[in-house]
Amino acid sequence: MGKLVIVGTVAFDAIETPFGKTDKILGGAATYIGLAASHFNIDAAAVSVVGGDFPQKYLDLLSDNKIDVSGIEVVNEGKTFFWSGRYHNDMNSRDTLTTELNTLADFKPVVPEDYKDAEVVMLGNLHPLVQSSVLDQMTKKPKMVVLDTMNFWMDCALEDLLNIIKRVNVITINDEEARQLTGEYSLVVAARKIHEMGPQYVVIKKGEHGALLFHNDHVFYAPALPLEEVFDPTGAGDTFAGGFAGYIAKTDDVSFENMKNAVIYGSTLASFCVEKFGTERMQNLSHDEVHKRLLQFKQLTQFEIELG
Amino acid sequence: MGKLVIVGTVAFDAIETPFGKTDKILGGAATYIGLAASHFNIDAAAVSVVGGDFPQKYLDLLSDNKIDVSGIEVVNEGKTFFWSGRYHNDMNSRDTLTTELNTLADFKPVVPEDYKDAEVVMLGNLHPLVQSSVLDQMTKKPKMVVLDTMNFWMDCALEDLLNIIKRVNVITINDEEARQLTGEYSLVVAARKIHEMGPQYVVIKKGEHGALLFHNDHVFYAPALPLEEVFDPTGAGDTFAGGFAGYIAKTDDVSFENMKNAVIYGSTLASFCVEKFGTERMQNLSHDEVHKRLLQFKQLTQFEIELG
Repeated sequence: MGKLVIVGTVAFDAIETPFGKTDKILGGAATYIGLAASHFNIDAAAVSVVGGDFPQKYLDLLSDNKIDVSGIEVVNEGKTFFWSGRYHNDMNSRDTLTTELNTLADFKPVVPEDYKDAEVVMLGNLHPLVQSSVLDQMTKKPKMVVLDTMNFWMDCALEDLLNIIKRVNVITINDEEARQLTGEYSLVVAARKIHEMGPQYVVIKKGEHGALLFHNDHVFYAPALPLEEVFDPTGAGDTFAGGFAGYIAKTDDVSFENMKNAVIYGSTLASFCVEKFGTERMQNLSHDEVHKRLLQFKQLTQFEIELG
Repeated sequence: MGKLVIVGTVAFDAIETPFGKTDKILGGAATYIGLAASHFNIDAAAVSVVGGDFPQKYLDLLSDNKIDVSGIEVVNEGKTFFWSGRYHNDMNSRDTLTTELNTLADFKPVVPEDYKDAEVVMLGNLHPLVQSSVLDQMTKKPKMVVLDTMNFWMDCALEDLLNIIKRVNVITINDEEARQLTGEYSLVVAARKIHEMGPQYVVIKKGEHGALLFHNDHVFYAPALPLEEVFDPTGAGDTFAGGFAGYIAKTDDVSFENMKNAVIYGSTLASFCVEKFGTERMQNLSHDEVHKRLLQFKQLTQFEIELG
């Protein structure tokens, strides 16, 4: 059993999809990552910031899921980061309607003392300098650092982004972002170029088409579970990352074979996340349901061809 | 070992991709299906039509690959079906530049006497009435009929298409076509609607994202092998279908578990097809190369999670 540090936003989201819309609900990368990682019986701590408007019940919700919230700073005179967006009919693209950084604008993450020797660090999508400052606080070199990022930082802070990419073992990135970062259309070539930037493992997320794990000349492909409907994709990528990092922290094994399993756990948890608005499905997800869906993933992908 | 009837075009193609362009080269659905099926040591016959301009060496090429060409009618006074197209930079879409039906316009397929009791019939993309006329000639009900089709027939001959769909066991169709045929965006829902039209098995081809096999509530997902570059996608779908049908004919087993393997063989063979222009790669493909790539597919998809 290992320790996991989760850095990312804890936020309010307001979401519109073809199925309906929400008021301000609980959101944020660290929230989704934490709820996913809570399935692995590990010591996990969230490092984030919220405002005085953030309800105690949401902090309690994270604590109830065994996420240490002592690293979530509450700035009483400030407001919590707020994002709102509207998904298009195909659910694969969305428009951002509002981004209010609020307390996030001055976020200086502080890793709790107990977690400065954590084995696994999950850097959720944030400014690359904020992500770097977390690694600077670790007193022991983590066994694995996972970085999530997005195209926004490629446009606005590329040099800082390249600096943090150098320092991590795993990067999770979507297909379009991998292409933007490398200027390569082929994901195989893009993954190789990202390897050269630093990370030994490259996870390329393809949404409804699943995820690819690259490590030197090895590739693993985890499909997404084909679903009747995707209700709300918000947080699916973070849930994937949380399942991935949580599984590694639990198993304490960073071999390629074990990372395949981590990708499958990430995909499995993400397949639940999209079934309801926001974090609703992840708040009420039993280990038994996860177990059943892992079996579905096996049936979905495993075959028996006799090869001499 | 079973018999396989392959119905489809034998054609000239002229192809333009970002990597170059060809003159008139050997193409056609039955050609690609036949070359793929030739890897299974079965009795296979192509049923098609060509003109007097079709070189004997191309017929010999098919014969050399153990494809019975007695069902390929040669209309000496006519010309062979010709298609030319240009692929866009992403290789996922293309423009048709020329379609000259020529002898295909009056094609009346005749199944060779020896093949009227074939266990497997592969109906390549053609007018649905032409596909139907092949089934009408079978003296024994085939164990499995596989239908390939395209959006063109949905636009121009929907009623005839629905009639042939009713008569087949397996349909192979791409994702956009499945959506068009059913009016459903979700491929899970689309597959269910296509089941209701007749076929017990629905294969949805997603190009670089692989293929899904649906059978009632069962789903299987075969990824496409991630490739550094796709040189020419022409014939990949037909090669997939040929590998699928050839494997079924060889194994004589139409269970869902065995069809998973058929999908993997189809994906494996298709992954070679796109490596060179036209049929070039398929003409020079050894069993050993296929075997090695099947191992790659295993490594790409298989994982070991202990589930209680």
